[in-house]
Order: sequence, then structure tokens, then C-alpha cells
Amino acid sequence: MAGSTYGTIFKIATWGESHGKALGVVIDGCPAGLPLSEEDIQLYLDRRKPGQTSISTPRKESDLVEILSGVFEGRTTGTPISLMIRNTSQKSSDYSQIASCYRPGHADYTFDAKYGFRDYRGGGRSSGRETTGRVAAGAVALKILSRLGVSVCAYTEAIGPVSIDYGRFDPAAILTTPTCMPDAEASAKAESYLRDCQMEKDSAGGVIACRVKGLPAGIGEPVFEKLDAALARAMLSIGAVKSFEMGDGTLAAGSKGSENNDAFVMENGCVRKKTNHSGGTLGGLSDGSDLFFKTCIKPTPSIFKPQETVNREGQNVTIQIQGRHDPVIVPRAVVVVESMAALAILDLMMLNMNSRMEYLENFYRDK
Amino acid sequence: MAGSTYGTIFKIATWGESHGKALGVVIDGCPAGLPLSEEDIQLYLDRRKPGQTSISTPRKESDLVEILSGVFEGRTTGTPISLMIRNTSQKSSDYSQIASCYRPGHADYTFDAKYGFRDYRGGGRSSGRETTGRVAAGAVALKILSRLGVSVCAYTEAIGPVSIDYGRFDPAAILTTPTCMPDAEASAKAESYLRDCQMEKDSAGGVIACRVKGLPAGIGEPVFEKLDAALARAMLSIGAVKSFEMGDGTLAAGSKGSENNDAFVMENGCVRKKTNHSGGTLGGLSDGSDLFFKTCIKPTPSIFKPQETVNREGQNVTIQIQGRHDPVIVPRAVVVVESMAALAILDLMMLNMNSRMEYLENFYRDK
Amino acid sequence: MAGSTYGTIFKIATWGESHGKALGVVIDGCPAGLPLSEEDIQLYLDRRKPGQTSISTPRKESDLVEILSGVFEGRTTGTPISLMIRNTSQKSSDYSQIASCYRPGHADYTFDAKYGFRDYRGGGRSSGRETTGRVAAGAVALKILSRLGVSVCAYTEAIGPVSIDYGRFDPAAILTTPTCMPDAEASAKAESYLRDCQMEKDSAGGVIACRVKGLPAGIGEPVFEKLDAALARAMLSIGAVKSFEMGDGTLAAGSKGSENNDAFVMENGCVRKKTNHSGGTLGGLSDGSDLFFKTCIKPTPSIFKPQETVNREGQNVTIQIQGRHDPVIVPRAVVVVESMAALAILDLMMLNMNSRMEYLENFYRDK
Amino acid sequence: MAGSTYGTIFKIATWGESHGKALGVVIDGCPAGLPLSEEDIQLYLDRRKPGQTSISTPRKESDLVEILSGVFEGRTTGTPISLMIRNTSQKSSDYSQIASCYRPGHADYTFDAKYGFRDYRGGGRSSGRETTGRVAAGAVALKILSRLGVSVCAYTEAIGPVSIDYGRFDPAAILTTPTCMPDAEASAKAESYLRDCQMEKDSAGGVIACRVKGLPAGIGEPVFEKLDAALARAMLSIGAVKSFEMGDGTLAAGSKGSENNDAFVMENGCVRKKTNHSGGTLGGLSDGSDLFFKTCIKPTPSIFKPQETVNREGQNVTIQIQGRHDPVIVPRAVVVVESMAALAILDLMMLNMNSRMEYLENFYRDK
Repeated sequence: MAGSTYGTIFKIATWGESHGKALGVVIDGCPAGLPLSEEDIQLYLDRRKPGQTSISTPRKESDLVEILSGVFEGRTTGTPISLMIRNTSQKSSDYSQIASCYRPGHADYTFDAKYGFRDYRGGGRSSGRETTGRVAAGAVALKILSRLGVSVCAYTEAIGPVSIDYGRFDPAAILTTPTCMPDAEASAKAESYLRDCQMEKDSAGGVIACRVKGLPAGIGEPVFEKLDAALARAMLSIGAVKSFEMGDGTLAAGSKGSENNDAFVMENGCVRKKTNHSGGTLGGLSDGSDLFFKTCIKPTPSIFKPQETVNREGQNVTIQIQGRHDPVIVPRAVVVVESMAALAILDLMMLNMNSRMEYLENFYRDK
Repeated sequence: MAGSTYGTIFKIATWGESHGKALGVVIDGCPAGLPLSEEDIQLYLDRRKPGQTSISTPRKESDLVEILSGVFEGRTTGTPISLMIRNTSQKSSDYSQIASCYRPGHADYTFDAKYGFRDYRGGGRSSGRETTGRVAAGAVALKILSRLGVSVCAYTEAIGPVSIDYGRFDPAAILTTPTCMPDAEASAKAESYLRDCQMEKDSAGGVIACRVKGLPAGIGEPVFEKLDAALARAMLSIGAVKSFEMGDGTLAAGSKGSENNDAFVMENGCVRKKTNHSGGTLGGLSDGSDLFFKTCIKPTPSIFKPQETVNREGQNVTIQIQGRHDPVIVPRAVVVVESMAALAILDLMMLNMNSRMEYLENFYRDK
Repeated sequence: MAGSTYGTIFKIATWGESHGKALGVVIDGCPAGLPLSEEDIQLYLDRRKPGQTSISTPRKESDLVEILSGVFEGRTTGTPISLMIRNTSQKSSDYSQIASCYRPGHADYTFDAKYGFRDYRGGGRSSGRETTGRVAAGAVALKILSRLGVSVCAYTEAIGPVSIDYGRFDPAAILTTPTCMPDAEASAKAESYLRDCQMEKDSAGGVIACRVKGLPAGIGEPVFEKLDAALARAMLSIGAVKSFEMGDGTLAAGSKGSENNDAFVMENGCVRKKTNHSGGTLGGLSDGSDLFFKTCIKPTPSIFKPQETVNREGQNVTIQIQGRHDPVIVPRAVVVVESMAALAILDLMMLNMNSRMEYLENFYRDK
Repeated sequence: MAGSTYGTIFKIATWGESHGKALGVVIDGCPAGLPLSEEDIQLYLDRRKPGQTSISTPRKESDLVEILSGVFEGRTTGTPISLMIRNTSQKSSDYSQIASCYRPGHADYTFDAKYGFRDYRGGGRSSGRETTGRVAAGAVALKILSRLGVSVCAYTEAIGPVSIDYGRFDPAAILTTPTCMPDAEASAKAESYLRDCQMEKDSAGGVIACRVKGLPAGIGEPVFEKLDAALARAMLSIGAVKSFEMGDGTLAAGSKGSENNDAFVMENGCVRKKTNHSGGTLGGLSDGSDLFFKTCIKPTPSIFKPQETVNREGQNVTIQIQGRHDPVIVPRAVVVVESMAALAILDLMMLNMNSRMEYLENFYRDK
């Protein structure tokens, strides 16, 4: 099936393997008239790039995006936007071992089980490099959202046992700390923890939180297309994500109705909520307060410790992974979370244009 | 948009409001030749029914299903199966207060924001009664899965602060305790906790866990249609669900790669995992071990304590909810979790039939 | 697959067999706020009903529609609209012969080939009664279109060898002649032709033309979702339809570019076309002139002459069809053509709301 | 909306403008294990290429395809196949006139009406070059079909007033005559007709017929996803196509049931039809006989005669088109018809794998 296609109106199809010729995405359904340049997209790809700090793989990937279609005289035309990023840094020799045996925590075994064989070079399509296409498309979605008054901001809330202190929350720090933590002190601790992990030939996981501001009330569709469901799907579609929590998330299970309900109150003539335990949705529709959700990232499965596994011939073997791998992927995944959130939200905002008869009538009255 | 339509091949469209004439679902894409009777479906609807224990609303709903199409001489024909459940127990007078003001924790405000008005009777389409159609369709999906060797079993893991002891796990208890907890002792404690909540005019939340056995490796599609993503979406599409965790879930964030990776080992000639931290997927595809995931349910928003809110005229008011409401919806949501899991999994199993060229060649060779 | 689901935003799922309990449709994605009553829909169902003239089957079907959900206080709520029509007039005994052998021109053999068996009562899901759900949904789409200034008018252009004279075109006649021909004289000739067919135990086909007025320019999507493609698909999805022609249709093949091109000209400050050979689209998008297309309907396959065929046991047999069958289905299909056209056009008009960035910006500016 | 995305399981997204950097397609949902090389695809692109005969534009386009992803060690991996064709021969200066005024018969006006502006270079996305991506994807679909025993063969039936004589039908001629007519004598006449058109600065249309052999009975889905509907949509989605006829097509309207019905008969133990008026479908499902359909192509709208039109400023002007244009596009469209037919049919064959419960049971029994 079309496992690499996403969205109903703002529809994207991503493609490409870790060590193939290129990766990319086709955006089918972008409105016409959006000013768009390669720089707009490059900005986000650069946030995803490895090799930028001591806590990411020293592998260099220039990841330069090329716009191949859909933009004319600096603006989108309404036709498909094809974005391509050539692969330049693959060292296939590093990965030859994977061809014959199944790395624990990776998709080697399941791809073989599904397809009968796999592109084993760097994980092929199951590599984190697959997210390049998501980020390129996400950059376009984020630009559109910003023009609609909606901002999406993700950051690292925790790495291993180190969590940020929300009292020290400094949004400016997100893009400057190597961890993407908005708390310089916590970030320093997390870096120290990661160095220890690296010494132990081990890896770490973490938590990414995301806040969306400016979303009007009523976005999302009842029942199966709830905004919460769209975000949960978007997050769990990212390789190493293991959980999704909306608002209070797992804490809601232990609270009481009187604690969990957010009281409504009038504020400057608008309906507001006094608290935001719900995380910005009610009944699957945005409620006008900030969206807030979290997602947990598992530790990088590529560790340098010897591990027990089996090979394609059905023998028990020990594998010792070589190569260049991030001790934690959380910081690089932050922009992926933003991208997927933007894609999910934009599509629902576009669908919402048809929610009332009066919207259609107003729109077509002048045509 | 089609917010009430779900699935790609096994596609369902649910419909109906809490206090409308009826609720139902159309299943479009059910394979031909499945023996199917109203009893097969009624069994699951009865598990969702209220009024069965002291911890659910005393509201009686007979919820009898009628098969209107798609079954001939006891077997599905391959054409749409229309299932209808007539509403019989609505007391519209109970809900007149909702018409004018927004209940905290409910979708009253967001539906008004989206649509300009709403069917306020019992929450209309945002009511938990909406899940009737899901359970009816889920019953069909569960029957198909069982014929393919796949079983889906959900249960209550916690209610408020009371969790089950996995050491006492008794699957037989699930359908006999009023809490759907597979641990009679924990269930008794939870019931006691719920009685306290009721005395305080308050409500409770909880945790539902689900285990799927018998799923072959390779189900799911890489990238956006990961099995994890499909389950996350399915769960968060259920009204009161606030989180989704796959396998170790949020715990993965704090663990190390060496702890989180599941080693592979040969067992009776088959590839097996020694542990199952991943919850049964790798790279978004089933890995041959049990699927395991959890989901948190928020406390019932309908509490009898006075609450602050606003009305449609934009005035701050105090609301005191009347009527018959569950102090906790967790036990009744267990069968909804099973249903949604089944719908998500079956669709991906059907899509998987086309994953290899040899499957198509074998299939069409004899035609 | 979901063969009975149609549309992207205005999505419908039809269900029901000729001799099942009922037929119906779920509309998922109807905008909120549309005034809608059962009478609005009944009007169109009545046009589809048999038993009204000497040239349709004397079978009486009251075909009363019931709105089961999605309408509150006389207006659509934005949630699924479930429409049901109970079957009341089935005489299953008439059809027992079909169970064992394959009627020429019918779907008996192909359904068996696909599904292994079939609901043989009256053709089951392959019966023309299947269009009941389309007409019910189409009535809603037509009502929306009319509020957007778009009208859809189909009529019979030919029955057998008898064609209307466009010089005598009288739109008022469409709903009054038994043939739905807008030319009383041609209609009388066609009726005479049909009586001859009936005497010969034979049947006739014909041509339905359709004109859509008021559609603004730019509706449709380039490439695969062309307005022409959507209409072609919609028409060929109707049981007995064998062709689709846009504008000049097959005549375009023999003309020259200088004859076929429609010159543009300014008219009252608007871009207009001097001719309309294209039938109202250019590049798959509406061009502001009337849409015009035609479709051919094959003769009713149920004829009373003996016919050669085979039975399920693989024996050559002669079949002589019994029962009550229309000598021509063209007049009853006219409203089906309007319905399908409306469903195709409305969906593309809804999708078009997102075609320009400025539309989204204007829409969300005030929210 | 996603106007450039097509298919449910075998899903493609095409992209690219006439004078952009490149054109291409992403195939999402191709089964794993298909041997695939660039040569397999180039073969079909070469059939679409212009500049090969006196009756096509002398414009040279090398149209070399590059496989960017989804193929490993010569076989498809099951992940997206990205195919790109770089543009090399654009002469943008030829087209500057189009920027300011609307060419009759082209999409200039409708694109402006929809999107507010357009990529005017060579028609941008509305150019016939858009079909490059379809043919590249179609080549893959055709290769899969051939391995399933299904062949798709299109050819030119008529150009202007010159039709082939089916008595002289020579399939070997299709790929050798410049007209793709399977009748050398008719082809010579057509060439002569086209030379006359060129002298008159005019252009011609024609008819393409297509025959599909080897399709088993039962392919297609009842109601909206009929095989006929899928083919009609596929054909009308091709730029210049104005009609679709299944089997006898428009002739069915004038025939009687006794003439139009195809009698069934046993032949070597199999159900066969004595005639094939239906064109190979019954009730929207393939009936085991050859599929046969036709489609009319309008004359090339780019003619060198002066034409009346309007400009973007709303003034009436005369346009005289310059550049290199085909006097007829029919021969080059033949491979596009094959490609679209293959895409439509393959998707339905894949969907059909889930039509019976026993198919799923057999498939999953061994897993």
C-alpha cells in the first residue's frame, strides 16, 4: 500500500533510502501563491543534519534541497512540488555486516519478513534518513501555518534521566543547545550523561514536547479524524517514537474529573479555559488554547556493545555494530516532530474550510 | 471531511447521535464468505452496554443490532454490511441544560465553534454512544482476525490509583469483574475507590492495556502507515483517550539502548525475541511477538459537582450536571479498544497481501 | 475494497440489495447548517421510482426515505447523515431461476467469479435498486449546489433510434414526458418504439445528456482529478452506462483544431467562449461556460425472449426471464445521472476552496 | 487537493512542468521482488518521445529516466520508486506570448482562474509533457501485469476521417507505422491527411482503441469502483481525451437487448461469451473475455492559424501560435492510454486479493 503517502488535501509522498542516490518528497495539494525558496526549506533540513555537535554522528551530510517543480517566479503554482536531496556521504562499506544478520532494535528482520529481502545499506528506507522528506515537506507546511497565524514549537524535555525544569524554560535556547533543551543547565547535564553513554558504548532516549500556538477553535473532525488522533498517528509514524501524550497524558488516568476538567471563563469577550489539562482539544477538535503534547523516543538501537542476534541463515550470532551513530537521536528528531505536527494540523485546517454551509456560500458568492 | 470514515480496504462509516433515531455503521470492503449473524455482533455490543453494574450508568440501552445488508444465507457477500442499532432509552429532558452552556471537559464548545450549532441532546455525535458503530464493525473485524489466527484482548490495567498486579493476572476475570480488571483483588479495590468518587460527586479515569497474539511478522507499512501509527491513531480517535504507549512506552525514554533492544534468538527454527520491550513492532512492522500497548482514559467529564463555565451568550455561569453518567468509563471502553485495534490491524493485514510480487503471481497463476 | 464509497470531502457510502431489508447511504462530510428535510430527498427518489408509466416496470416501490442521523432542528449538523429506504415490494419468488444460472447481460456470472457466491434475489447489490442510495445522497448534493448557484439538468436525448430535435427543446417537458425527453413529439415516437420492443419481448437503450449551469471557472484539479475524469468515472459507475462524451465528444476525433477550439472573447467585462465544443472544461478545469456531457445506456438486459446461457453446474441452458422489468431504463436513470454529476462536482468545488493561499489567509484571518 | 496522485494500493504521484527542471513520478505501493531496470521504463518513454517522425513535433527530447529509489540489486524493494526525467530541450523564448494571453483550447485561462497565475512556459503542468510521469509509472504496472498474464495493447483506430479496416488489422504494424495504426494502408492515408492539415496550419484528432487480454473474471468492484468507471476516469484524465466507450459504446444506445446481450456458453469446461458487445465487463467486473474500449482525442489545440482570444488585461486580441507542435497527438498518446489502463487495472487486481475470506485464510495459514 501507499505507506509513504500522507495527508488528504495537503498530500505528500516521500521516497528514498539511506544510501540510495537521493531522497525526496512530492507535495501534491499545496495552495498556489505561497512564496517559496530553497532557503525556506534548507533552514529546516539544516536543523535535522547530523555532524553538528559532539552528541550527534560525525557523519557529514550536506543535505542540500533542490526544488524541481511546482514553484514559478518564486511562488507555488498549486501543482506538485518535487523536492530532492542528493545523497553524498554514504559509506556503504560500513554497513556490509547488516546484510547477513538482524540488528536488535532495527527493522532488518521485519523488512525481510515482509518483503523477502531488503536494501541493507544503512537501513535503507527504515533509516532515520527517511525523515529528510518529512522535514522538507514540513518546512512548507510550517511556512503556510505561520501565514495563518499558527506556530509550532518542539523541544527536548528529557534525555535519559535528565529533564528540563519548566521554571527555567528559555525558548531561545532550543536552537542553540546541542540537546535542543530550552534549559541550559539541564542541557549541560544531559550532555554529560550522553558522554557517559558513549563511553559505555551505549545510547540514550528522551522526551520531545511540542506546543502549537494560534490555532483557532474547531480544527479536527469528530470521530476518527480527531486532531488528537491525527497527531498521535503523525508522531508514532516517526521511527523511534514509542508514546504519545495529549495534554496531561498518562497523568489523566489517575486524576479525578474535578481536577481534569478545564473550567471555561470569558476573557476579553472570548471563551477561554482557566487551565489546559486537555492539551488544547475537546472532543477531538481544537479548543482555542495551546496544543500541547509529548512523545517518547527510544534509545538509539545502534550501540557498539556486542549483542546477541540471529542471521539470515537462522544461526545465533553475536553482532558488534560499527559505523557512525548518534548516541541519542532526540535533538535531531525535534524538527521532525515539528514537521509532522505541521503536516497533520495543516491538513485538518484545510479540511475545516468546508465545515459550514455558510463558508461555501460566502466563498462562491463572488465567483 | 469524512471524519466518520475509517480504513483503506476494510472501510467503515459510522453514524448516529446519542439521542437520534438510531446509530450504525456501514462496512464496505468485508471479504465474501464470512459466516456472520446478529449474535456474533450482539456479543460485543453487550459488553459495551451500560446499566450492567453499580459502576456504570443505570441508563438502560438494549442496543440490539440489526443486519440490513451484505449478508445472504448466513454469509457475507462482499458488498456493504449495514448495521443499525435503534435508540430506545433517550430521555431528552435530562439534557436541556446543555443546549445553552458549555460543559467543561466536553465537546459542546468546540462543536459550536466548528459548526455554528450542535445537536445538544446527550452530546449528540460527541457522546460515547458514538462508539456503538465502532464496536459493531469491530465485532466483524475480530471475527475475521480470529479465523486468521489473531486474537485481540484488552483489559483494565488501572482505575484511578489502583493498578492490577501482573503477578495475579487472570484473563478469565476480564469479562467477569465489573471493572474488566484481570485481578479480582485489584478490581475490588477499584470498585471501592469508585464508590468514593461517586460520593464526592466526582469521577475517575484509568488505563486500558491490550495484547494481540498470533500476528505474523511483517504487518504494517513503513513510514506513515506503521502499525504503531495505525494503533495510536485508532486509540486516540476514541473520545476520552489521552495517551498511547507501545511496549515499554514512556519508560523507553529513560532506558539505554542495551536495555531497550530486544535480542533475537532462534527458537524451534524460528526467529524469536528474548524480550519484548518494543511491544511487538520494529520499524513499524509487526515482529512476530505479541503486540502490547496501553492507553490512558481521562476521568468522565460529567461530574455532579458544580463547575464554572460559560454559556452561548458569553456569560460566566455555574453548571451542575444532571442525569445518569458513568463514574468511570474505562470498563465499557475495553471493548472499544479491542474493536479499534482489530479494525486497524485487519486493514493492514489486508494491505499486506500485496507486499510481494510472488504473492500476486501465486494468486493469479490459477485464475 | 471500498467499492461502495465515493468522494473525498463529501464522502458517501451506499449499501443495500434489491431484495434485502433496506437500502441506504451514509453521507460523511456534509457541511453544517444546510436546511434538510425528508421531503427534499423524497422529491428525487420519486423521480427514480418505477411503476409510474406504461414504459416502466409495474412493480410498485414506495421508496420512502428516513433521515436517521445528522440533522437537528431541520439543519445538517456536520456529522454523518444516514438515510434509509425500507424495501417493501420484493417478490423473491420471481427470481428463483437466477440462483442457478447466469442471465446474459447481467452481473450474475461475474459476482460468482469474484465472490464465490451471490445474493441472487433480484440481482442483489448489482440491481438497479442500488442507485437508490446514490439518488438520496445526490438530492443533498443538488440542494447544496443550488445554494451555490449551480444547477444540474439531465434529460433523455434518445431512446433506441429516436432522438430529440434540439430545435424543439422544452426543458419543462423533462419531468412530464414518460421518457424524460424535452421534446413531446420525439417522446411520443419513443413511446411507440418502446411498445414495439415490448411486443417483441425485447428492450431498448438510449442516450442521456446533462447540462450544468452556473459553475465558476477553475473547478477540477489538473492531471488525475480532472473535472472530465470525475464525471466520466461517475457516469460509468452507473450500472448500464457504456459511454461518456464531454462536449462534442466522439465528434472531436474527426474535426480540425480550427473547428474544435473555442475562441475566447470579452463579454460584459468577463472572459467568455464564443462556442462550447469543449463542453465546459479546459485542461480538466471548468472554463465558466456550461458543462455539457452525454452518456449511453445499454438496453435493459432482462428481456423475455429465450436466451442461451450456462448454469452454475457448467451446463448450456436456455433461460426465459420472468418478472417485471423496464423495457428501457433510460427515463429512470436521468435522475441518477443528475445525482452522480452533483456528487462529482460538489466534491471538486469543496476541494477547490484550498486552491490558493489567499483563500486560506482570508478564511483564517478572522478566526 | 491531491490532483496528481492516483491509485489506492499501487499509488503514484506525478510531478513536473513542461519547462521546469525535470518531471517524474513516485510509485508508492509497488510489490517487492519485481526485477526492474531503467531500460524497462525507457522502452515506454521512447514510444512517447516526440521528434521521431514527420507527423510529430521536431522538438527533440531525450527523456532519459533515472531510478532514484526503491530498487536494490535489480529488484523492487517494496518501498517508493522515484523516477526522474530531466528536461533538456526547453526553449522558453518560444512561449513568451502565452504569458499574457489565453490560447484557445488550452488551459491557460482555467489555470489563471483557479490559481491566480500560472507557469506559462510551454503550458507548465497542463502540457502533454505531464504524461511522462504516467508513462514511467505505467511501464512498471505493465511489467507487473505481464507477469500476471495480462497484456494491454492500444493502437490508433482513426485519425481525422481515416479509420483502420479491422479486416487488415496487423498488430505488428502498431509500433512501426508513424500513426500507430495497425493497418499500413490506412496509415499512409492518415499521413497524407495530416500533411494537408499541416499545410493549412491546422491540426487533427483521432481515436485510440485498447484491448486487454488475459484478465481473469471478477476484477473491479461493484458500484463506484467498477472496472469501467476506473478505465473511464483513467482515460478522461488524459489531457486531450473527450470520450470513453466500453465495448459497443455509443452503439449500445441504439441496439436492442436481444442484440446487445452476450450469450454465455461452455467452452473447454469454462464459461465463455459468444460475443463481446459488453467489452469485457458485466456489472462493473471483468467477465473473462477481452476488455475493449475506445477513446477520442481532440485535435491539437496549438494551430498556426490566427485565432481570436483575450489577454490577461481583458482585451480581445488575435493570437498566432509559434513553436513546434504536433499536428496530431494521437500516435504519441497511444502509450499513454496503455499506461493509464495498466495503472487502473493493476490497482483493481491488487484490491481483488481481499475479495474472499478464503483468500485471506489461505494466505495467512502458512504464516
